[in-house]
Amino acid sequence: MDFSKVANSAAFQQRFIRDLAALVAIPSVSTLPRHEEDIRAAGDWLMQQLTEMGMGNVKCLESPRHPSVFAEWKVDDTAPTILIYGHYDVRPAEPLSSWDSPPFELTERGERVYGRGATDDRAGVVGTLMVIRTLMENGVLPEVNLKLFFEGEEEIGSPNVGSIVSENRELLACDLVVSVDGSQPSTEQPALMLGLRGGFSATLHVNGPARDVHSGLYGGLIRNPVDAICELIASMRSFDGTVLIKGFYDHVVELSESEREKINAVPFSEAEVLGNSGSPTLFGEPGYTPLERNWIRPTLEFTGIWGGHMETSPKTIIPAKAHANIVARLVAGQDADELFQLVAKHVEAHAPAGVEAWVEQGPVRAQAYAMSGSHPANVILSRILKEVFGRDPYHSRVGGSIPVVPVFRHILGAPTIMCPFGINECNLHSPNEFNEKVMLQRGSEILFRLLNELSALGA
Amino acid sequence: MDFSKVANSAAFQQRFIRDLAALVAIPSVSTLPRHEEDIRAAGDWLMQQLTEMGMGNVKCLESPRHPSVFAEWKVDDTAPTILIYGHYDVRPAEPLSSWDSPPFELTERGERVYGRGATDDRAGVVGTLMVIRTLMENGVLPEVNLKLFFEGEEEIGSPNVGSIVSENRELLACDLVVSVDGSQPSTEQPALMLGLRGGFSATLHVNGPARDVHSGLYGGLIRNPVDAICELIASMRSFDGTVLIKGFYDHVVELSESEREKINAVPFSEAEVLGNSGSPTLFGEPGYTPLERNWIRPTLEFTGIWGGHMETSPKTIIPAKAHANIVARLVAGQDADELFQLVAKHVEAHAPAGVEAWVEQGPVRAQAYAMSGSHPANVILSRILKEVFGRDPYHSRVGGSIPVVPVFRHILGAPTIMCPFGINECNLHSPNEFNEKVMLQRGSEILFRLLNELSALGA
Repeated sequence: MDFSKVANSAAFQQRFIRDLAALVAIPSVSTLPRHEEDIRAAGDWLMQQLTEMGMGNVKCLESPRHPSVFAEWKVDDTAPTILIYGHYDVRPAEPLSSWDSPPFELTERGERVYGRGATDDRAGVVGTLMVIRTLMENGVLPEVNLKLFFEGEEEIGSPNVGSIVSENRELLACDLVVSVDGSQPSTEQPALMLGLRGGFSATLHVNGPARDVHSGLYGGLIRNPVDAICELIASMRSFDGTVLIKGFYDHVVELSESEREKINAVPFSEAEVLGNSGSPTLFGEPGYTPLERNWIRPTLEFTGIWGGHMETSPKTIIPAKAHANIVARLVAGQDADELFQLVAKHVEAHAPAGVEAWVEQGPVRAQAYAMSGSHPANVILSRILKEVFGRDPYHSRVGGSIPVVPVFRHILGAPTIMCPFGINECNLHSPNEFNEKVMLQRGSEILFRLLNELSALGA
Repeated sequence: MDFSKVANSAAFQQRFIRDLAALVAIPSVSTLPRHEEDIRAAGDWLMQQLTEMGMGNVKCLESPRHPSVFAEWKVDDTAPTILIYGHYDVRPAEPLSSWDSPPFELTERGERVYGRGATDDRAGVVGTLMVIRTLMENGVLPEVNLKLFFEGEEEIGSPNVGSIVSENRELLACDLVVSVDGSQPSTEQPALMLGLRGGFSATLHVNGPARDVHSGLYGGLIRNPVDAICELIASMRSFDGTVLIKGFYDHVVELSESEREKINAVPFSEAEVLGNSGSPTLFGEPGYTPLERNWIRPTLEFTGIWGGHMETSPKTIIPAKAHANIVARLVAGQDADELFQLVAKHVEAHAPAGVEAWVEQGPVRAQAYAMSGSHPANVILSRILKEVFGRDPYHSRVGGSIPVVPVFRHILGAPTIMCPFGINECNLHSPNEFNEKVMLQRGSEILFRLLNELSALGA
């Protein structure tokens, strides 16, 4: 079977778009309780498709919020098992008035299709069904055993994926995960994804007086928690962006020179970062390039601060309290719990005089993830990407976290490679989300070939 | 006329309480628009009383919000002119459920009278009327020329008192102001008020990215305005409470050793400050006692801070902006405008890398005030206080500002001495505001004697 020919055929593309339209029509927004039934409907649609095409063991894996969908196709005990991961939930479409066509109605315009989830991640989910159905309809057996795992909570941060994977560890056991979520740098340029940052969230609390008191009557007598929290935060970060918390960088795995060279071979546009963010200049830890700072160095960000009188008008108080939210991004070698403890110790050691200061652990706790570019699966993927795109893939990382990837690593012992069905610039999570039609073909062709060639990994 | 005997007579006290009850019954709350008519009614009541008792030139001095009431009694071109200052507006009574008796119904319980304004400042206003009416009814001429100036905007920060005094500078011209607002330390202990702090308000702004951006995608690339504003604020204050802004203390008039001794002779209770505020410890600039820090040293307080995600939940952003409100308290020798400029220069010189930072001037701009304890008016007042209370007065200051006092100094050239009709601990601005009946007598006796003895100042 000529996978390239099949994936690029008009019939394949038309059917892909038709099925994608069917799934886009179900507004399975996981972040809004009013869409609970739509989530369920999208899961049912998936199970029905999987059952109809003849997948085995199709089942719903319940979670405290939204269920995951599982199915498998076992071909050969001696072949490796690949788990394909995607998610069938989407972000809210609001603000609706910013869309040029209805968000839950897939709309073709030129070389693109528009709709909520047209890329993230309905393209990957439908693409998986398309590839497997095509194999089945043509009587072609994949060279690997297949398991499918489609999550319904990715857009709310996959809060239950750890327990779902843990409770179904036998069912989900595999040698490698292929994620159909994610995106390529562009329609011209592929990438390997070799690392994700982990992280944790926390909140810093500083208590001064028991209630807001008069700044004239008490100014000079007692400590103001606003300047105290600023002293504390300033003690955590140098003016040049280096984190000053003792031990913060201790277990960071330093990359080899050749790995750093590959990172810095990825084009980085300062103008684009400044244009997209609106920041006046780049800023960060000295000694590293911007991409290194974003991909392979940990950061400590204060995502919000609040206390006292919070509008531009005078109110003569010394506030009772001040607070700041922390989100740390961690890299391979760092443990989220250990790093939180370092922050807590710092707060204890640097607690400003005259106030009480402490740090509260937040719900986010994700381990970082790293995978070598020379892992056999990446070698195979790299070759396929080069053949499909005509270019060597970048060795990329992600500055953010994808909770499920370290979960697969830690619970199933399986690394994750990426087979995305979209590109970075697709209005992800925003109005007018779109996909390039060519990416539906590229993603499908790559997935076809992975299922055929990953057998080289062995069981 | 034996002023002590008159002021302490049962008839005088009964009439004082009856008139106080009449004024307390008018809810002239200046902070709430729905009481606009009540403010007007209280002003009318005052003008009617002044007219009936035979005061001259009774008039309403209009302002953009609430009017002031003026009256005069000219006795002798060669005598000094005394302006008696008080205010007829009050704070809101809410929460009403916390009152043990109706707030606008003066209620006697034991040695106290309860009601909104029973101390602040209806006691001073009614006390002034009582003293003058008594002199008139007994055909006793005061030894000084009298002008009365009762404001209706004190509880909203006297926003228009500067322009009212300025526009009526001839009408209000005087040699000395006697304020019947304020309070004595206790029923046992009097005080001279020798200083008020001035100050200014401002808002610090720090801009990072044009909108909140993802902390994973941008963390390590651009500056976070929350940690930038913390760096900036931390650069303004040492960990020990010293203000680090260049020139901040330059023009502070240092007090003599003997004046500092008199300040430190005023009892200061650490336990009381910590108990009332709920702060864990005292805190402030080294080298000064707590009272010195609160009375004669400038402070820089951050009255509020805000930016980014302001609740205890994770949101993975680098915020676009951060802001902080500043209220500075200044002392004699310091100019509010000049000090604001020093803050602006500091922000310019210490602007953190990677963000835009600037400071916006706020509406508060009050000059500090100082008056020597050996000023002839204070010498006279001091003697009277000792005779009435049986104790030497403390040499006190106020950590906060009273806007009208520096206005009288700067526009009329007149210093202000205090003849309060209440004590500090009277639930000022709170439910169950009260006054000690003995303070109605004490205030009246002192005012009688001031009007008789201040003639020694000369015209």
